[in-house]
Amino acid sequence: MTTPGPSRPKLVAISPATVLHPHPVLIVGSFGADGKPNLMNAAWGGICCSEPPCVAVSLREAALTYRNILDTGAFTVGIPSRGHVEAADYVGIVSGRDHDKFRDTGLTPLKSEKVNAPLAAEFPFTLECRLIRHDKLGLHTIFIGEIVGIQAREDVLGPAGIPDIEKTQAILWGGLGNNHYFAIGEKLAPAFSAGSVFGGPIKKPRGR
Amino acid sequence: MTTPGPSRPKLVAISPATVLHPHPVLIVGSFGADGKPNLMNAAWGGICCSEPPCVAVSLREAALTYRNILDTGAFTVGIPSRGHVEAADYVGIVSGRDHDKFRDTGLTPLKSEKVNAPLAAEFPFTLECRLIRHDKLGLHTIFIGEIVGIQAREDVLGPAGIPDIEKTQAILWGGLGNNHYFAIGEKLAPAFSAGSVFGGPIKKPRGR
Repeated sequence: MTTPGPSRPKLVAISPATVLHPHPVLIVGSFGADGKPNLMNAAWGGICCSEPPCVAVSLREAALTYRNILDTGAFTVGIPSRGHVEAADYVGIVSGRDHDKFRDTGLTPLKSEKVNAPLAAEFPFTLECRLIRHDKLGLHTIFIGEIVGIQAREDVLGPAGIPDIEKTQAILWGGLGNNHYFAIGEKLAPAFSAGSVFGGPIKKPRGR
Repeated sequence: MTTPGPSRPKLVAISPATVLHPHPVLIVGSFGADGKPNLMNAAWGGICCSEPPCVAVSLREAALTYRNILDTGAFTVGIPSRGHVEAADYVGIVSGRDHDKFRDTGLTPLKSEKVNAPLAAEFPFTLECRLIRHDKLGLHTIFIGEIVGIQAREDVLGPAGIPDIEKTQAILWGGLGNNHYFAIGEKLAPAFSAGSVFGGPIKKPRGR
C-alpha cells in the first residue's frame, strides 16, 4: 500500500510461532480426584471477557491440571510476585502426578472460598474460576473460566480496591525468543489518555 | 487446609474483576469492507495453542474491528514498542468509523503477505492470522486466529530468528488497578530452569 521509506527498518517474513510480548505467568490451581491440590504454570492465557468477567488458559491434554479441571469444573489463576519466580518455574517443570508442588515449594494451599480449587496463600492475588466452556484447538485446549471471586493480599490493593501492578510486583515471561522471567518495568504513560496527543476523546477504561 | 501463619499477609475477598498482571498491548489490524485499513488496541488476548500456533483476541460487537474480522476472516496482531505508546493508546480511544488511525498516528499501513489484513510497518513484529473460530462469551466475543505468518523487523530477532523481548522493547498495560503502560523490566531468572532449586528435570520450552 505504501513503499517503505528509507528510514524504516526492513521487515522480514519469519515462520509462524507462538510469540507475543509479553506473556503473563499464570499459576493454575486445581484439585485432583483424590483431593490433592496442584499448581501448574501456564503462559498461554489472558482475560477474554469483561461481562461476565472471564479468563482463558490453554492446557495440553497430558497435563494433570487438564483432567482435574474437567473433573471439578473449577480452577484458580494465581499471579505470582517476583519473590515467587523459582516456585512459579518449578510448578511448570514437574508433574503433579509424582510431586506435591505445594510441599516442595513451601507455598501454602488454601481452598478457594468460591470454587472447588486450591490457591497459594502467598501470591498477591488469585482469580477463582468456574469452568464455563472448553474447546480443543489442537495440541492445546482452551479453558474459559468465569471469575466468580478474587482472593487478594490487602497490601497489594490500590485506592479502588483492585490489585495494583506496582504493588504486586508481578512477573512476565519473555517467551520463545528470550526464555527468561522479567520484572515489570518503569511506568511510561497513562492509558486511555496518552493517545490524545493525536486527538480524540478520553475514554474510561473498561474491557478495551 | 492450613491455618494461615502469623507472617503471611492476610487475604481478603474482593469482587470479581478482569484483573491480571500483566496484560499485553495487542494492536489488531483489519480491513473494512471499503478496503480501509484500521487498527485497534486490545488488552484481552494471548497465545492459546502451540500447534497449530493460535492467538486469541476478544472484542466487543460495537468495535469496527469485530465486523471487519467477520467480513474478511483475517486479522493481524501487532506488538508495539515503547516508542509507539501514544499511537497504541490512540488507536484504542477513537473509532475507525470516523478516524483514519494510520494517517493520524503516522504509522505506515502495509498489507500482510499472508492474510487479507493490514499491519503497521513500524512495529517490531506482527502476527498474521486467519480466523478459525469465534465465540460470543458475553460482552466480548473471543476471536481465535491461526498464526500463518509473522512479519518482523530484522533488528529485533534473536539468535534463533525469533523476536527477542529485550530488543522489541515491548510494552504492557497495568490494568484496571493501575491504568498505565509500563516497560518490560529487568531480567530475573531463566525459565524452565530457575525452579530446579526445588528439584525436578529441566524441560525444553514449548507450549507450557
